[in-house]
Amino acid sequence: MVVIMKPGFSQEELNSAIKEMERGGVNVMISRGSETTILGAEGNAQGIDIEKMQALPGVERVMRVSEPYKKANRKYHPDDSVVEIAPGVSVGGERLLVVAGPCSVESEEQITAVARDVKADGAQALRGGAFKPRTSPYAFQGMGYGGLDLLEKARIATGLPVVTELMSTDDIDYFVEHVDVIQIGARNMQNFDLLKRLGKTTKPILLKRGLSATIEEWLMSAEYILAGGNPNVILCERGIRTFETFTRNTLDLSAVLAVKRQSHLPVMVDPSHASGQAWMVERMSLAAIAAGADGLIIEVHNDPVHALCDGQQSITPAQFKDLMDRVGRVAECVGRTI
Amino acid sequence: MVVIMKPGFSQEELNSAIKEMERGGVNVMISRGSETTILGAEGNAQGIDIEKMQALPGVERVMRVSEPYKKANRKYHPDDSVVEIAPGVSVGGERLLVVAGPCSVESEEQITAVARDVKADGAQALRGGAFKPRTSPYAFQGMGYGGLDLLEKARIATGLPVVTELMSTDDIDYFVEHVDVIQIGARNMQNFDLLKRLGKTTKPILLKRGLSATIEEWLMSAEYILAGGNPNVILCERGIRTFETFTRNTLDLSAVLAVKRQSHLPVMVDPSHASGQAWMVERMSLAAIAAGADGLIIEVHNDPVHALCDGQQSITPAQFKDLMDRVGRVAECVGRTI
Amino acid sequence: MVVIMKPGFSQEELNSAIKEMERGGVNVMISRGSETTILGAEGNAQGIDIEKMQALPGVERVMRVSEPYKKANRKYHPDDSVVEIAPGVSVGGERLLVVAGPCSVESEEQITAVARDVKADGAQALRGGAFKPRTSPYAFQGMGYGGLDLLEKARIATGLPVVTELMSTDDIDYFVEHVDVIQIGARNMQNFDLLKRLGKTTKPILLKRGLSATIEEWLMSAEYILAGGNPNVILCERGIRTFETFTRNTLDLSAVLAVKRQSHLPVMVDPSHASGQAWMVERMSLAAIAAGADGLIIEVHNDPVHALCDGQQSITPAQFKDLMDRVGRVAECVGRTI
Amino acid sequence: MVVIMKPGFSQEELNSAIKEMERGGVNVMISRGSETTILGAEGNAQGIDIEKMQALPGVERVMRVSEPYKKANRKYHPDDSVVEIAPGVSVGGERLLVVAGPCSVESEEQITAVARDVKADGAQALRGGAFKPRTSPYAFQGMGYGGLDLLEKARIATGLPVVTELMSTDDIDYFVEHVDVIQIGARNMQNFDLLKRLGKTTKPILLKRGLSATIEEWLMSAEYILAGGNPNVILCERGIRTFETFTRNTLDLSAVLAVKRQSHLPVMVDPSHASGQAWMVERMSLAAIAAGADGLIIEVHNDPVHALCDGQQSITPAQFKDLMDRVGRVAECVGRTI
Repeated sequence: MVVIMKPGFSQEELNSAIKEMERGGVNVMISRGSETTILGAEGNAQGIDIEKMQALPGVERVMRVSEPYKKANRKYHPDDSVVEIAPGVSVGGERLLVVAGPCSVESEEQITAVARDVKADGAQALRGGAFKPRTSPYAFQGMGYGGLDLLEKARIATGLPVVTELMSTDDIDYFVEHVDVIQIGARNMQNFDLLKRLGKTTKPILLKRGLSATIEEWLMSAEYILAGGNPNVILCERGIRTFETFTRNTLDLSAVLAVKRQSHLPVMVDPSHASGQAWMVERMSLAAIAAGADGLIIEVHNDPVHALCDGQQSITPAQFKDLMDRVGRVAECVGRTI
Repeated sequence: MVVIMKPGFSQEELNSAIKEMERGGVNVMISRGSETTILGAEGNAQGIDIEKMQALPGVERVMRVSEPYKKANRKYHPDDSVVEIAPGVSVGGERLLVVAGPCSVESEEQITAVARDVKADGAQALRGGAFKPRTSPYAFQGMGYGGLDLLEKARIATGLPVVTELMSTDDIDYFVEHVDVIQIGARNMQNFDLLKRLGKTTKPILLKRGLSATIEEWLMSAEYILAGGNPNVILCERGIRTFETFTRNTLDLSAVLAVKRQSHLPVMVDPSHASGQAWMVERMSLAAIAAGADGLIIEVHNDPVHALCDGQQSITPAQFKDLMDRVGRVAECVGRTI
Repeated sequence: MVVIMKPGFSQEELNSAIKEMERGGVNVMISRGSETTILGAEGNAQGIDIEKMQALPGVERVMRVSEPYKKANRKYHPDDSVVEIAPGVSVGGERLLVVAGPCSVESEEQITAVARDVKADGAQALRGGAFKPRTSPYAFQGMGYGGLDLLEKARIATGLPVVTELMSTDDIDYFVEHVDVIQIGARNMQNFDLLKRLGKTTKPILLKRGLSATIEEWLMSAEYILAGGNPNVILCERGIRTFETFTRNTLDLSAVLAVKRQSHLPVMVDPSHASGQAWMVERMSLAAIAAGADGLIIEVHNDPVHALCDGQQSITPAQFKDLMDRVGRVAECVGRTI
Repeated sequence: MVVIMKPGFSQEELNSAIKEMERGGVNVMISRGSETTILGAEGNAQGIDIEKMQALPGVERVMRVSEPYKKANRKYHPDDSVVEIAPGVSVGGERLLVVAGPCSVESEEQITAVARDVKADGAQALRGGAFKPRTSPYAFQGMGYGGLDLLEKARIATGLPVVTELMSTDDIDYFVEHVDVIQIGARNMQNFDLLKRLGKTTKPILLKRGLSATIEEWLMSAEYILAGGNPNVILCERGIRTFETFTRNTLDLSAVLAVKRQSHLPVMVDPSHASGQAWMVERMSLAAIAAGADGLIIEVHNDPVHALCDGQQSITPAQFKDLMDRVGRVAECVGRTI
């Protein structure tokens, strides 16, 4: 930690800043510049309360030097984490994980048909929403528990593990029992109550990046789950909000690189929500894999025109097949397999 | 609703677009431009599924013309809503509502002392966090239920109604019984599960704008509560996330104007979280009132240097007193009172 | 300046970092933390090349501690700068400067009529574009030199000094001779070639903030002009670009406060471009003055419906009169006059 | 064009809106919805002045339906444009264009050595700045004309065409004579005066996207050049400004896809400025090619640690060699060559 003193600070203010740092368990080094005096922490600065430091009179600015996330930090866990989501299916290793399926579960026929199709084309897991976070209270909110049942039927029919979104702490136990990967959506990335509860489980959690979350905040949300004791966190970049409106969101592929450098956790990419347009999905998938993503989660619908949600960003099974072929070739260029 | 057809659409595509619109219950007007063909809905377009329309082949773009929020919409509720938060204390009318208090409840002494101070200076309600949403799992998370008890003691001591943040659906019943206004923080603005439950109560809800929420999304979150049957929604602008880092957030005062034009709901402003710096709070408060805000929610701490959170943005009771004097004078200029 | 070393840096890397800092003329203090080693500059760090430091192996991050702007910095110029734009008309002191006029000069009648109207209502200077920066090459680009002539006629008719935008270095000499304040638009805020040339004049420059410029970048653009020898810089906040689309831009009033704390330069606000909507102009003007702006620049047109540009954000002279009354009252609350 | 009338508009307001549209040369179709009345333009709406329409009383909103760019629009120019920058070297066809070289020209030795290295590894053109746009007036501003001379020497030594940034209209003639591709930097993307002048030349122009420019604004800036008569425009995505600060900018690869769909112009990517970090350059290059970019412009320096600018984002010739190998392999996967 580095503390910058205000110009014209008093000796008393300096002393109290030093005292507060020392109380945090560090030695303090003082650099007096011609214009600025800087205090550096010698030792482990974790014990210092940054907010208190910032509120001290005489203190201009406090700069954290080490990352606030510990368990998510690659410094203390240099090897890539590999998260197993079902026997023989994992993410974070050499083999990419491709999850595919419709935005929403709509019927047994639909979900099972899509599951069969995407499995045939190489998907290793099935996505499908039963509880849908919708901007409008008047929009289709998902089939709820009935949808979870149909996902289980699709799993039985195909063997594909199931990834689906959880919105409420009330449903955690049910999800833990019936679902393979619990997805936390962008809007709940900082629903800390939910994150804490998930930390008490051992279920794999797919944690989507919030619409305007910094990389650090995203890793801190992962830290909530990890700190609770659940090591099975998978991150998912799904586009951030910017001023550009041509695309639904702006896919931030450098975030994939950044996260993989700062953290050992696997990182997937959702090109469907990022772009919001079916015709962009294949190319953004290739770009994601080229950038180094550990997997993809893609919306596939057997009849996008009649999808109950997100039809405009869903690709067909035929398009998914082509996509998988090309993803496989790009994966090879970067030393990965599908 | 307006539908723009793709260049070179087929007659069949046009027919299916028209059919989908008619299924939604409207007549369709066709404008054929030299380059573009436009379909306009004649009648109430609410029944049309926009996402489905967008997924139709031949359709380039679908533009909604009327707002998606109904109960929050001033069109159907031209008069300002006035929300009463305690007998004789309300927001949305001529008199401004000023809520003040510490970031967190820390002890009985602290919260009662601050409550007495801010009441003496004209605050009509007390704020104070018992459950704190913190970016880090290692930061102080609030006193929890113990904090709610202390808020009640402060209410008994001063008569001030209490505003405090709810984070979990598990606590709703307790909050409804023990708290006067339930605050929903920026990070939970789209925690739809929570919003739905709050719609089943009649408790006043202070709904903060999400960090990167558009005005429309914010009003749609209000709509979740209103649609459930609870008319007592108070909006709160608290700064949005931009590229600027000098301030914690960027206070968007034109959003106050925009919301008050589009909606009948009262709008407050939180200058403390918006700026993140105590020295900015007074001036941003004056600006908020000049812009037309219906009230302010301000962090006041009797000892900011030792506050357990947000000390750097908390003002002292003495500073709050000055602020209230000046707010009163600006309020008068715009036909309001405190 | 503070330099953070990478974990596991070598002694050689440390030595070369220290050497590079010493070459810049400072003593180096070393703080060895348990995880991080920090180098602090003791003395004036201006001579150190930050980019070179950042490229050194073993260096993780370089943090500047003092602001990069010098002449614009309040630290070295504690008193507010007052810029005189015409005899007896200045900005930065107790009296607010209100500049008003149409988006574009359209005809002698129009500009003179508007000038007379706004003068009657208390404006102290006239705005009007002759060279217009337009997103589209097919849009009206302004009357050019003919427009400047008409502005001069309006000045003769009313005595109001004239503020108008310069787009090209070719026109600097002409502007210096014929115009009172040279406006540099948001899109040219980092047209460094233009800024350097303006630094060689002594003309007052109204420097608008770029659409996505940080406060620091804005002050660095002012620094270009100041460093050339021209002290007459007036800053103008005109809204920044965010994800919100209801308003044309997002007026950042906390930037006014921030700039006035960091710099001695006067800061005006343009509520017309910020909001893009005539009905918002008055309220945002009041908010700007309450926040501490030194003046306003407002689009006024005698016939907004037929304006050649920006009609939707122009107010009428009658609306301007009301606005001035209310601005006067709010100004009084914050110790200013109009 | 679609015009939405305000609720409660008068017949007179409707008539004047219709009249204004008809004056623009279109027939007007009226759709009366239960809540909204919509006017659609039948015919070519180009002649209608949108700003005037928006300022009309009774008009709530005007929505443009067709793109404002014409010459840049793929609708009127379905085939990809291929821009030749030197005999046998072009961009926009099957073969990717890779431009490489240092941020700044520093000396004859430096620029010639880098030119030789990057040529050996497959670069087809040399980049190097002689006039540098720097945020600070105190930073190295480039060698100026001397730098252009050295670029010419490097061209003679290697045969590589030269890409370098122009900042001032004063230098256009000199650049046209001595340079192969004129680069317009992000900060000058809306320096309309400069764009208009470049439209009068036939020189290839590399037009970088502004820091917060929408795709539409970027294409409108290209339109300025095209409208002047110069068809040789090459676009370059170089990252946009968002709230994320880990990377210098956020590379927006979906913009590459979007632009190539909307326009026939070639699009390159600059991964060096986008990320600001040398270790990210290779991966972001691969992602750009996978997404469909027509080429790359990469900062390569033979001694990044001593580079006069951007050392932290420059890669070495050895790293560039590896990058080219991998780019070649990914290019093959998407049907391109290098």
